[in-house]
Amino acid sequence: MGDRGTREAWVTLATNDAYALGALVLGNSLRRVATTRRIVVMLTEGVSQEMRGQLQAVYDELVTVGTVDSEDERNLALLGRPDLNLTFTKIHCWELTQYQKCVFLDADTLVLQNSDELFDREELSAAPDAGWPDCFNSGVFVFQPSLETYQRIMAYAQSIGSFDGGDQGLLNSYFNTWSTQDIQKHLPFIYNVVSQAFYSYLPAFTHFRGKIKIVHFIGAIKPWHHPYNTATKTVTTFPETGHCQEFLQLWWDLFMELVQPRLDPTLTPFIRYE
Amino acid sequence: MGDRGTREAWVTLATNDAYALGALVLGNSLRRVATTRRIVVMLTEGVSQEMRGQLQAVYDELVTVGTVDSEDERNLALLGRPDLNLTFTKIHCWELTQYQKCVFLDADTLVLQNSDELFDREELSAAPDAGWPDCFNSGVFVFQPSLETYQRIMAYAQSIGSFDGGDQGLLNSYFNTWSTQDIQKHLPFIYNVVSQAFYSYLPAFTHFRGKIKIVHFIGAIKPWHHPYNTATKTVTTFPETGHCQEFLQLWWDLFMELVQPRLDPTLTPFIRYE
Ligand SMILES: O=c1ccn([C@@H]2O[C@H](COP(=O)(O)OP(=O)(O)O)[C@@H](O)[C@H]2O)c(=O)[nH]1
Ligand SMILES: O=c1ccn([C@@H]2O[C@H](COP(=O)(O)OP(=O)(O)O)[C@@H](O)[C@H]2O)c(=O)[nH]1
Ligand SMILES: [Mn+2]
Ligand SMILES: [Mn+2]
Repeated sequence: MGDRGTREAWVTLATNDAYALGALVLGNSLRRVATTRRIVVMLTEGVSQEMRGQLQAVYDELVTVGTVDSEDERNLALLGRPDLNLTFTKIHCWELTQYQKCVFLDADTLVLQNSDELFDREELSAAPDAGWPDCFNSGVFVFQPSLETYQRIMAYAQSIGSFDGGDQGLLNSYFNTWSTQDIQKHLPFIYNVVSQAFYSYLPAFTHFRGKIKIVHFIGAIKPWHHPYNTATKTVTTFPETGHCQEFLQLWWDLFMELVQPRLDPTLTPFIRYE
Repeated sequence: MGDRGTREAWVTLATNDAYALGALVLGNSLRRVATTRRIVVMLTEGVSQEMRGQLQAVYDELVTVGTVDSEDERNLALLGRPDLNLTFTKIHCWELTQYQKCVFLDADTLVLQNSDELFDREELSAAPDAGWPDCFNSGVFVFQPSLETYQRIMAYAQSIGSFDGGDQGLLNSYFNTWSTQDIQKHLPFIYNVVSQAFYSYLPAFTHFRGKIKIVHFIGAIKPWHHPYNTATKTVTTFPETGHCQEFLQLWWDLFMELVQPRLDPTLTPFIRYE
């Protein structure tokens, strides 16, 4: 182990209180599986002071990042791509050079089993995207912080852009040998199972269910948008989101047990109790 | 090239006249892109004599295979797995030892661009399944005919079975190092793009559209189940199948131009003209 516990970190991102809530549950899920690595959250000024206090209790480090600096903003405007603003925010993770190896996790992921072995992988390792599996999904990826890489990706984003307008398109174009070069950089799908996977191929989902380590609630509707019944202690699934009821319930169990009791309800006006 | 044109073959399968119709369109699509390899269709007794005549005109070789022999049938009954019957039928392709290298194509696939370079790949090469991308999709795969492999897979099927009750679960369990061992055995997704992919990740679909070589109409509703309007020459898409209109239209264009003019309409009672 050596000092890997201090040199390696899980990293997530929140630009507002809703995603910060996701980060709170995620952070707790990492603690619950007893990770030996640091856990870090990158925040923008969109996250309230109160929410920062909550995050402080779970995360080892809070890092404030700008959404994008003024010069970039001018360049983006020239390119007519103001939408890349948020994309750039995730890329800031490469600036975390106090760590030698990191695993980025979207704030809408949930860790079910200890996954510390991911730190043995090299940059850029990621799992296939279920929608177009020659692309990796950028919700979970292993990377190596480096200012040089940071600048290269930023320059690439500004000259080439992103084919999907988000970080996934950008990172797939930048790390464009992922699908063909090194099988070691293909994380098993169990490290980034989209919550809809039970729907797209149920027998495989059932077959591999016990092996799933990280779940990812992709799509516009996140776990915190689903209503929760406090009497029955169950979440109400919206069928059109395709999210797996079992995983949604797990998210809510963690939230209600570890986060909600010490949370000022005015911080989360978007949460609906029934 | 040498004699690869006679030693290597595309192989498909039809157990009834509906899938035979798929095979007819597929065979024509292979001719249209001027493949230099043989094209072979495996048939069971469920395919009519008239349909065999049609296939004869397009395919280099028709091979009749049994669905399953009596001894297997007894074993399957003992195992309570009569559903593996059809699964076993596809596995017969390993018996085609008159060829040294083959590419299997489901009868519900369509070749858009010449893909003869697939014969440079080794067994077992296949593209990821969009539903669970650590499994390969068994609608397109490179294999090497061998009686020994045939018997091993059959024995495996009888002892272990298939986690999805079909050939995909069986082949993924048998070739279970596919997802972790050799990136060369990961065919690019462009060789087996499910017709629903435009829906699951539209920006990637759009970005890679021009590169797509083989389309696969997975699911219960096949191109030949969609109604076709002879006046406007357009196919009516059923939205719930999620099939891409553009690809469905392509299938129908090929069918109407090359297959339908010489087809006795009584052979295809399932086809609906509007
Ligand atoms: O308004 C936003 C949108 C995204 N994110 C961060 O960026 C990640 C990627 O976005 P999202 O998970 O919504 O995309 P999806 O996984 O649904 O494609 C989130 O998990 C958050 O960590 C954020 O902080 N604020
Ligand atoms: O009744 C059947 C079912 C399947 N097949 C063959 O087996 C393949 C796999 O089945 P299908 O394509 O229906 O499965 P999907 O791709 O939808 O999972 C078909 O393309 C055909 O070649 C067949 O001949 N008769
Ligand atoms: Mn996400
Ligand atoms: Mn098929």
